[in-house]
Amino acid sequence: MSMQELVYLSLREAAERVRARQVSPVELLRAVVARTEALQPRLNAYITPMFDEALAAAQQAEREIMAGQYRGPLHGIPVALKDNYWTRGVRTTAGAKHLADFVPTEDATVVAKLRAAGAVITGKTNMHEWAIGGTTTNPHYGATHNPWRLGHIPGGSSGGSAAAVAAGLCYAATGSDTAGSIRNPAAYCNLVGLKATYGRVSIYGVVPLSWSLDHAGGLTRTVEDTALVLNAIAGYDPKDLGSANVPVPDFTASLATGVQGVRLGVPRPYFFEGVAPEVVAAVEQAIQVLRDLGASVEEVAFPSAAQAPLIYPFVSRPEAASFQEQFLRTRPDDYGDVRPNVELGGVILATDYLRGQRLRTAMREELGALLTRVDALVTPTVRAVAHPIGQSFTEVAGMPVNPFTLGVGLTVPFDLTGTPAISVPCGFSPEGLPIGLQIATRAWDEPLALRIAAAYERATPWKDRHPPL
Amino acid sequence: MSMQELVYLSLREAAERVRARQVSPVELLRAVVARTEALQPRLNAYITPMFDEALAAAQQAEREIMAGQYRGPLHGIPVALKDNYWTRGVRTTAGAKHLADFVPTEDATVVAKLRAAGAVITGKTNMHEWAIGGTTTNPHYGATHNPWRLGHIPGGSSGGSAAAVAAGLCYAATGSDTAGSIRNPAAYCNLVGLKATYGRVSIYGVVPLSWSLDHAGGLTRTVEDTALVLNAIAGYDPKDLGSANVPVPDFTASLATGVQGVRLGVPRPYFFEGVAPEVVAAVEQAIQVLRDLGASVEEVAFPSAAQAPLIYPFVSRPEAASFQEQFLRTRPDDYGDVRPNVELGGVILATDYLRGQRLRTAMREELGALLTRVDALVTPTVRAVAHPIGQSFTEVAGMPVNPFTLGVGLTVPFDLTGTPAISVPCGFSPEGLPIGLQIATRAWDEPLALRIAAAYERATPWKDRHPPL
Repeated sequence: MSMQELVYLSLREAAERVRARQVSPVELLRAVVARTEALQPRLNAYITPMFDEALAAAQQAEREIMAGQYRGPLHGIPVALKDNYWTRGVRTTAGAKHLADFVPTEDATVVAKLRAAGAVITGKTNMHEWAIGGTTTNPHYGATHNPWRLGHIPGGSSGGSAAAVAAGLCYAATGSDTAGSIRNPAAYCNLVGLKATYGRVSIYGVVPLSWSLDHAGGLTRTVEDTALVLNAIAGYDPKDLGSANVPVPDFTASLATGVQGVRLGVPRPYFFEGVAPEVVAAVEQAIQVLRDLGASVEEVAFPSAAQAPLIYPFVSRPEAASFQEQFLRTRPDDYGDVRPNVELGGVILATDYLRGQRLRTAMREELGALLTRVDALVTPTVRAVAHPIGQSFTEVAGMPVNPFTLGVGLTVPFDLTGTPAISVPCGFSPEGLPIGLQIATRAWDEPLALRIAAAYERATPWKDRHPPL
Repeated sequence: MSMQELVYLSLREAAERVRARQVSPVELLRAVVARTEALQPRLNAYITPMFDEALAAAQQAEREIMAGQYRGPLHGIPVALKDNYWTRGVRTTAGAKHLADFVPTEDATVVAKLRAAGAVITGKTNMHEWAIGGTTTNPHYGATHNPWRLGHIPGGSSGGSAAAVAAGLCYAATGSDTAGSIRNPAAYCNLVGLKATYGRVSIYGVVPLSWSLDHAGGLTRTVEDTALVLNAIAGYDPKDLGSANVPVPDFTASLATGVQGVRLGVPRPYFFEGVAPEVVAAVEQAIQVLRDLGASVEEVAFPSAAQAPLIYPFVSRPEAASFQEQFLRTRPDDYGDVRPNVELGGVILATDYLRGQRLRTAMREELGALLTRVDALVTPTVRAVAHPIGQSFTEVAGMPVNPFTLGVGLTVPFDLTGTPAISVPCGFSPEGLPIGLQIATRAWDEPLALRIAAAYERATPWKDRHPPL
């Protein structure tokens, strides 16, 4: 097997070979480390690689597996972490200058779960400053480049994680999604990214952006891999006040079930407006594929979604300003261009914040009613393909957009509702940049989102295409 | 049995006679109606009596019981509702002029549960304007008088409910407790009042004051009666976003268990400071009674409780202002003297509100740690006995107090933590006014609070004393 073939095995394929002792965790790690050393100067995917630690972990995994102590599909698999996940003894910047020297004394719950599953942590990936997606480059740790086209954004804020997975520098990576930061880089980089139900995956030890909106999750190259990662990281965590004590299913169980009889809703108002024509075309084709696979498709409306970009700052900014209160006061000049976004949170009235929270409740109820008539919504993930780093947009498809509505306008409604939404690759623009299909389901029904995404993935060739690096 | 004996049966005693067909629900109702007609002019306990409806309900209960369809201990029992509980077809003012003509089309969940249990709803009781305890009289519906001494306050905001139960106008009444509004009138009127764990009793259909702090519950003359009411009203309600889907025990099950080996903590700092000497004396005696019954007693500290009165307005006022936003804008002159309290909520910053919520979390963690060392805290419920209507205090026991810290300073910590706290009668001041003992336990451990209160109640004569009316 060539190095290229080895690094582009799916997580599940790599795991099978590890379990069968055909490939050792140390070989997997050496392959991705070699590739990272070659590509990091161009991609800037990592802020802090952890290759020494990773080698020790891979060697331990190798010993355990040789001793017959196989832990499961993540055992010995190189996995990267977005740099807002606490790692014991390893600095965790959240992309911020304020945290450049912050070394947690504890792992985030997700990190502890990944380690317990035997994952080999390769390092901490680049991200937007404080996970705020308003900037296309990180002013402190540099821009990450999209492996599909250097000089273009990989999306964000989990852009380093997406670049690392897409470029074959690891088999999965964690992200966090407050307005769309898992799904948007997944779409920009031909990856699968799932934001599960709020409370499904612990956010303890993930540096908060806005705690009532923050979701932890994974980015992978296949739907099955996303299910395997979710199996490892989901579950109740008493350390996380928002964690839900609900049963955790095997998320791989229904991946092969197909979509016969599944009722899909297509909310064309808002979700298909101001979307680039090549994105609309790819998503329409994807809907036709799902119809051909046996799903029924109907037009629906989710009107309050259009309010989402307006509601979001009233909720998000005060929570960010609350968490960052000391930094705003004592180190204002250490902010890059997200500073006005955070400062905004300090001048919003409590009644405006509460109005935002109450509108979220109304939005969740509207979506809940809609999802009794259909089983899932299908939409584009992002309005356009990845644009050049530093470029600012004013319109897409003849509709005015600002960077926020361009990047997360279609994803943020499901952060506000706290309900599951997955992005799955659905094709490429004429110039070869990836496009994502978003599938949104009822609270706690990640299995259905994964099942629809898996059926679509099996019927299309996108997951087998890798960037021209 | 005399009329006086009949109206002062405990709920459980009345229920036994109803079940045994020794007394009919119609007789019970006629007794309390006659007594209400005699005393309402002096007490002003009700805003809206519902005697015609109640008679129909009592007659129906009588028919059902004669037909062998006995529903349980609330069947046929006259119960009053604080006037912030929605009642279908009957106006629900919340003590506010703004809602003078508000007629709900649905019952509050607690009301529906009481009706399902067969309770006979006698009417809607007087309360502070919008349930805000800052005022000692209601400017729109008049002052309620304490049955133990006319011209004195009954406490609040559930003062009408407390006056009705204490005066023998019903066998139980609902209250709501945002800063202490169940426990404080219970203490002032020689009653038992339990604020259960946040999420234990649905607040759907209880006109909100501050939804993250509002608790629904009952006021009764005995601990067992409080357990019986809680049995009827507790339970998960999907209509209430804060309702918890947790198992509901039989709250009467451990009332007879006693307190042998129970570890009581006495937090003298803060909870015993600025407390009237007769209240301290009664509570110290109560602690000695519990020690004699086999409980161990140790000194503890709950330091963040002292911050509670300072934290409370930053959380409560914005939520009140958010709910009342339209009224603040369109009908500001319809407020009585609570107006500045509500208006304050409109100028508090979101970051201040969130700081308040975060300090609540810290307070809950501190209490949680303390309640691993002891099983319950015992404190006075209120700093002093009921004072004359219209009197304003500046100091108690040589310590400066404002009306808020006087009335709810010792109860509000447990609203902020959302954990159970009960007030049980513990004696009288030299001038014959009631004193309350507060017992606070771990989240979801209402059974222990009830058990300690019941053991104390059995050992003391207070529940058998009734007001000199």
